[in-house]
Amino acid sequence: MARKVRVLTETDLRRTVPLDHEAIAVVERAFATLATGKVVMPPILSMEIEDANGEVDVKTAYIPGFDGFAIKVSPGFFDNPKLGLPSLNGLMILFSAKTGLVEALLMDNGYLTDVRTAAAGAVAAKALAPEVHTAGVIGTGMQARLQMQAAHLVRPFQQVLVWGRDADKAQACAQDLSQTLGLPARVETNPADLVAQSQLVVTTTPARTPVLQAEWLHPGLHITAMGSDQAGKNEVAPTALARADLYVADRVSQCATLGELRSAIAAGLMTADTVPELGQVVRASITGRTHADQITICDLTGTGAQDTAIATHALAKSENSGIALDL
Amino acid sequence: MARKVRVLTETDLRRTVPLDHEAIAVVERAFATLATGKVVMPPILSMEIEDANGEVDVKTAYIPGFDGFAIKVSPGFFDNPKLGLPSLNGLMILFSAKTGLVEALLMDNGYLTDVRTAAAGAVAAKALAPEVHTAGVIGTGMQARLQMQAAHLVRPFQQVLVWGRDADKAQACAQDLSQTLGLPARVETNPADLVAQSQLVVTTTPARTPVLQAEWLHPGLHITAMGSDQAGKNEVAPTALARADLYVADRVSQCATLGELRSAIAAGLMTADTVPELGQVVRASITGRTHADQITICDLTGTGAQDTAIATHALAKSENSGIALDL
Repeated sequence: MARKVRVLTETDLRRTVPLDHEAIAVVERAFATLATGKVVMPPILSMEIEDANGEVDVKTAYIPGFDGFAIKVSPGFFDNPKLGLPSLNGLMILFSAKTGLVEALLMDNGYLTDVRTAAAGAVAAKALAPEVHTAGVIGTGMQARLQMQAAHLVRPFQQVLVWGRDADKAQACAQDLSQTLGLPARVETNPADLVAQSQLVVTTTPARTPVLQAEWLHPGLHITAMGSDQAGKNEVAPTALARADLYVADRVSQCATLGELRSAIAAGLMTADTVPELGQVVRASITGRTHADQITICDLTGTGAQDTAIATHALAKSENSGIALDL
Repeated sequence: MARKVRVLTETDLRRTVPLDHEAIAVVERAFATLATGKVVMPPILSMEIEDANGEVDVKTAYIPGFDGFAIKVSPGFFDNPKLGLPSLNGLMILFSAKTGLVEALLMDNGYLTDVRTAAAGAVAAKALAPEVHTAGVIGTGMQARLQMQAAHLVRPFQQVLVWGRDADKAQACAQDLSQTLGLPARVETNPADLVAQSQLVVTTTPARTPVLQAEWLHPGLHITAMGSDQAGKNEVAPTALARADLYVADRVSQCATLGELRSAIAAGLMTADTVPELGQVVRASITGRTHADQITICDLTGTGAQDTAIATHALAKSENSGIALDL
């Protein structure tokens, strides 16, 4: 039986799947469903290739109510820059959730991961941040830019502060953000000063020792920590997690092994079994922020549910793009 | 940096990757390397989608010496026949083992799995079967046909016997095999009679209670059991495994949970820690069959290493086929 599979390249997807309110809404819906317990999300398949300083992760999730499920393959080969190639890559395959047939090959080189990761930051800000005048970002890479863009869609703040270990990169990031968002953006030379002035802080680093300290917490602060996605990484001091009025995980099982929660558990400050998930706040099945002065933290490790959500969304937005491959 | 990815359909792959000596050799090489302990082969990622009576498995392996590694996605949606669609499907993605970049999309609908599974049967027969005059196959599906074709390449037997629960299907299978192999093929109405006359028996069923009994074992018999690939399946009586002179697994960790070995362990007749692997026999790092009268059994559950081997082979054979997609 002849059938067609849509093949979309990064160029196609950058055109058809911008980081916008629609992308945020579909990722929000994924989190809401994730909290119902009806999502099937197996542990991440991970393979290390020491010979090439590489690793590859495979994520997937089935979300009831979504027509498809994605399988995402994310290789990271850290010697690639020496060859003039990017370290990170990958693709998503979208399957029909009714028949298991391949519906689309999304050759996005990681672009859709960037979008769904930033969208999750926006979902967290929408669910937990108070009114935001100043947003601060720690880190100066792609996600520093995208997290601020996404957050601005749901909390239209008036200025952005940037801190990074490399002053030049921080300056470039601030300039980009100023241009993209059309608002003042400047570098802070001290992360404590950045946090002090911000109502929303997003950490986007691969730090292995905390860059955000507990004594910097102040009433009315929301922090989203999205940099830690493997054991060994840690951006926010464990004492900060314990001190916050509310700490939520994107997925408890993942945060306890790959996220900020891991270090807090190791320090004996938290236990996984009482931690709520972002989707529960989205669904209002637990209470989120109850007043503007509370301190909240959201820990994002990245879920297969987001991949399924963005891949389904991408196909819906791209039905006249790319190639239709005859199978 | 612009680059090209080769996209091959099932039609392309059926033309360029026949079940032949080359395919068997590449799978044999994968098994040999698997036995060195240098292969990285993570546990299978498996997701069940109860709402659609479906499941999806993801397998992968990195084999030193192979230029690429495959990630194979195999959906099985068992209500598909009601919709006029096949239950089994899937594709393989071939990545560079040096850079992690996608090199090929093999949209094979499971064809390459059929080939590498049959090739593994041939590797087992070549490693363990004695001289074969009569080969017997239990089961009447696609693998019944392909296993006999593959075995015939390495053990050019003179006749084939077929047994299946459904006499019409057994007759059709025998007819197909007679035509394909150009030799006498007939149905046996009793599996014990089939085993009694055969020097090589391949079991290819989804049986959940043994179809091959220990009392049928006879000197000079080799059995390859390839049907069991999940907990709950069992083709060969546990007592037969224990009674054989040599039992080998394709991968001990998989056979102990998904293969024939599982039932033998459950019956207290075997322990996983003393079981050798097929690759060790291929490399001659353990002794295989030492004389023609021995009884040997090989348990095949299907490994990611075979997928990486066949996918690498498929790209090498298909460099002028299919589509070159610009990324």
